[in-house]
Amino acid sequence: MKLMDIFGALKRDMDFIERQLYRSIEGDEELLSETSLHLLKAGGKRLRPVFVLLGGKFGTYDLEKLQHVAVPLELIHSATLVHDDVIDDAGTRRGKPTVKAKWDNKIAMYTGDFLYAKALTLATRLPIPELHRILAKAMVQMSIGEMEQIRDFFNTEQSVRQYLLRIRRKTALLIAISCQLGALASEASSRIHTQLYRYGYNVGMAFQIRDDLLDLCGTEKSLGKPPGSDMRQGNITLPVIYALQDPEIREPLLAELEVIRSNGMEADAGRAIGMILSSPGIRRAEELADRFIGKALDALEGLPESKSKTHLKEIALFVNKRSY
Amino acid sequence: MKLMDIFGALKRDMDFIERQLYRSIEGDEELLSETSLHLLKAGGKRLRPVFVLLGGKFGTYDLEKLQHVAVPLELIHSATLVHDDVIDDAGTRRGKPTVKAKWDNKIAMYTGDFLYAKALTLATRLPIPELHRILAKAMVQMSIGEMEQIRDFFNTEQSVRQYLLRIRRKTALLIAISCQLGALASEASSRIHTQLYRYGYNVGMAFQIRDDLLDLCGTEKSLGKPPGSDMRQGNITLPVIYALQDPEIREPLLAELEVIRSNGMEADAGRAIGMILSSPGIRRAEELADRFIGKALDALEGLPESKSKTHLKEIALFVNKRSY
Repeated sequence: MKLMDIFGALKRDMDFIERQLYRSIEGDEELLSETSLHLLKAGGKRLRPVFVLLGGKFGTYDLEKLQHVAVPLELIHSATLVHDDVIDDAGTRRGKPTVKAKWDNKIAMYTGDFLYAKALTLATRLPIPELHRILAKAMVQMSIGEMEQIRDFFNTEQSVRQYLLRIRRKTALLIAISCQLGALASEASSRIHTQLYRYGYNVGMAFQIRDDLLDLCGTEKSLGKPPGSDMRQGNITLPVIYALQDPEIREPLLAELEVIRSNGMEADAGRAIGMILSSPGIRRAEELADRFIGKALDALEGLPESKSKTHLKEIALFVNKRSY
Repeated sequence: MKLMDIFGALKRDMDFIERQLYRSIEGDEELLSETSLHLLKAGGKRLRPVFVLLGGKFGTYDLEKLQHVAVPLELIHSATLVHDDVIDDAGTRRGKPTVKAKWDNKIAMYTGDFLYAKALTLATRLPIPELHRILAKAMVQMSIGEMEQIRDFFNTEQSVRQYLLRIRRKTALLIAISCQLGALASEASSRIHTQLYRYGYNVGMAFQIRDDLLDLCGTEKSLGKPPGSDMRQGNITLPVIYALQDPEIREPLLAELEVIRSNGMEADAGRAIGMILSSPGIRRAEELADRFIGKALDALEGLPESKSKTHLKEIALFVNKRSY
């Protein structure tokens, strides 16, 4: 389900953003427009633009301005996805062939580069140096997060702290700044930016933990791919780290992960998933996601009452819904 | 030879820039620092920082400010190189193993992403929205140029115009804005930016044409790789396009290019190079490079007399030297 469906209030503005998103990648180079459009049309929740608009409601809401934040953030998100697919050697995303599968890795790499650059060009339409600074810094952190992910592939010794730092960079930061920059572009007070950043950061952390849980607890039908994809790629997620802390499960799970490692994407992750499901890993990860959502809701407390605040609360609860 | 050796005047400032370049990539994530340092330490002419500093001399020269232009431009240049090496499947660059060879394609991709983002972060230390706008636009054009290059691999029907548009995006634009942004950051008049941009654009065009000539006319010793690498990769350069316009050479050269295409990087480009050298292709490409240098020198005419103007003139003549 698309998040935007839950609030008709934003529908018209989100439709405008959607059109601007498509327009932003048109007319430069044919192949780049085609690959970028393919990527954008594959869908997605447009979570970042939604947050930008909701953040914008806490100041002087101006869609003409906000589009120059919302569109870039979604383009940056798309750029990371297309580069991710190269790393993960992913054939499909959201049930459609990836750019790297339909074209090739090289074209996927340049599509990502194009989307990053395009995002920045659009953002520079707003002459707010602080905004450009926040955006560029987040991009540095995101690329570090991506590299950490590669570096930690199949690292079964990693700590919960390492995992949290990684998802902070990889996911939470972009969501945090989506909320923050919407408010910044609308000239809301700096206290409001800070609270919105905190909200977004905590929602982002919970969102990624839930996503990682889904990959273990979902079904092939609900996921559009067999469960355990993360593990097959070597991405050791929170429930796995917790499961490895269980002395009874640790040794057999390590052995199973070694088998998966040697078989790569063809591996059968069924046995490993079974072990994790029977460990306290799932419950503990859920509890941590709950705590992040709690902090996100706390951050909202300080904000003035409004429809947007209610929407943000709804999204936080939606993100944390057990969808498996 | 390093360009900076020809003017001792800039030596101290360029040493500072060199140190800042290394500092800029330190301390984030170990592997990213290591791959980025490897790339930067492989050397290079630091042509873009030199142009920034020389451009800066036409206004209120402030090295503290100019570093935030010079370092980002060299980082962006390095990012394109590391992504290029993935595309070209290059094992060595300037005699040293490439990042993709020493590590792998995925690490090379994220190293490029990191360098792009890092460059932007540093540039945002200067609160000049116009500068960010020019930088971001150039990055869009560069990614389009890269894609055009892939798209035109082994396209023997391409026109001189297509080639020129491509190298404009791929090379000339970044050099043009290096000259321009140095002046912009130093608050020189807008007439000066414009002339420096024109100078840089024309020098950049000549530079790329010369580089493409070198790949055909150089020796394995002078190039650090066998001549004809461009052709083996499918990169059809200006001398080849001109040679294909020669009715006597066209058919045998097309046949030879087809053989090269089917043998890939293992192909022997010797026969094709022989044909091109015996055609008017080399001379005509040299003439076009000369014309660009002529225009670059014209652009300098309008600028006030100064040591920097003399340096820019020297660089233009240096770029156009027949080094084969």
